[in-house]
Amino acid sequence: MKGSNIEVLSSISNPKLRRVRELLDRSRARKKEDAFVVEGIRMFREIPEDRLMETFISEKFHEENPSIRGSVVKNEVFQKLSDTRTPQGVLAVVRQHHYTLPDILQGENGLWLILEGIQDPGNLGTMIRTGEGAGISGIIMDRNTADFYSPKTVRSTMGAVFRVPFFYTEDLAGTVREIKKTGITTYAAHLDGKKMYHEIDYADRTAFLIGNEGNGLSDELTSLADIKLRIPMQGQVESLNAAISAALLMYRYMTGR
Amino acid sequence: MKGSNIEVLSSISNPKLRRVRELLDRSRARKKEDAFVVEGIRMFREIPEDRLMETFISEKFHEENPSIRGSVVKNEVFQKLSDTRTPQGVLAVVRQHHYTLPDILQGENGLWLILEGIQDPGNLGTMIRTGEGAGISGIIMDRNTADFYSPKTVRSTMGAVFRVPFFYTEDLAGTVREIKKTGITTYAAHLDGKKMYHEIDYADRTAFLIGNEGNGLSDELTSLADIKLRIPMQGQVESLNAAISAALLMYRYMTGR
Repeated sequence: MKGSNIEVLSSISNPKLRRVRELLDRSRARKKEDAFVVEGIRMFREIPEDRLMETFISEKFHEENPSIRGSVVKNEVFQKLSDTRTPQGVLAVVRQHHYTLPDILQGENGLWLILEGIQDPGNLGTMIRTGEGAGISGIIMDRNTADFYSPKTVRSTMGAVFRVPFFYTEDLAGTVREIKKTGITTYAAHLDGKKMYHEIDYADRTAFLIGNEGNGLSDELTSLADIKLRIPMQGQVESLNAAISAALLMYRYMTGR
Repeated sequence: MKGSNIEVLSSISNPKLRRVRELLDRSRARKKEDAFVVEGIRMFREIPEDRLMETFISEKFHEENPSIRGSVVKNEVFQKLSDTRTPQGVLAVVRQHHYTLPDILQGENGLWLILEGIQDPGNLGTMIRTGEGAGISGIIMDRNTADFYSPKTVRSTMGAVFRVPFFYTEDLAGTVREIKKTGITTYAAHLDGKKMYHEIDYADRTAFLIGNEGNGLSDELTSLADIKLRIPMQGQVESLNAAISAALLMYRYMTGR
């Protein structure tokens, strides 16, 4: 017996740590394991208990936070393990959560985001965070949109990743046609829009279509918008950042009713 | 005479290219030379003519765009030179522009952003871009805020970097006191705010105080706000991303009047 001695993981090639790196680096590994990685004490505290699979802490963190249990990792190794430049010393593997489309379409009132090809995980994460703030019912995305559970997305959500319902569809246009039948009115920001976004009386069930950062919404998705609206822009600005547009629209829905 | 043969820069250690890397990598180099670097064809087209100092193009870009002149760089070397993963083959050194405080405080009406310690250059760039869209008069920042001319900031502005007036101050609190004397009313988002941001009748000359991403606005700056306002948040969201908050406030000023 070694008494209270604990094992300290001291090599990045330890299988447990290699698995964490795989989950951080590869979307395929996340899908296969149905898991993702969360870093930092603030995010750690927000993990739903029944979804926490495994916790890793640095030696330093372990000394300073004896109440938080997990596999202890040598400080230098933790530094290599982490996806951030200044790791906080705590990192967890968390089970993914899946919603069905009917799950997220419930309610007489509701607000949805429909995302087409959002590339930047930071933008996606910011939309998830702002969406929770605006009381969103769910986010529907195509497969070209960034991974909901990538480390950069997760970080940008500041915890909203655990709470905002979402659904990836193989056929975004088909799904939009389907959800319109449930009484959802679809709105898209477009340069041809006649009404300004802040002058619209939004439907009880409202969905905003948001397109790719560089190219905007495809013609097919644009044609599926019940209403085209405009966000006014001064100067020589041709468009706003996708997460900014989404925020202005969602908060207008929230505060304008 | 070598006829129409042009010199192709074929080594990253060429002094001209080393200078570009310095300007990309180091804020000090940018200050010393009073210059910065812009990448990509879209941004290149927006450079004010009188500020363009030097242009570098890849061999491939040169073949495809014979009308754009610049020092030609071997494709592989251009790849190393660029700050982006998929360089577009054109990059320019541009002269910085400086505004004085009186420059940016003109006008009977106006909208300003006052930034304290914004760390993320992407956030700063997005605020500059959204600010132009909202018709902002200028941005006032402390020295802890990211560099207006860093490559990531510049990229996120989508060209607004050439047009939005700005001013860095050594003493943000002192500057805020000074600008309040010019009839500017200052507003800060705060959890203690009584009024919601969308229920306020904003002053003709309005400035929004925006704090650091992690810690928010300091007590000193908060105490300088004439009016504390609240942005409503549902769910468990404690705060919004700084660029999102700034966008909601600026666009509310723009569309609510």
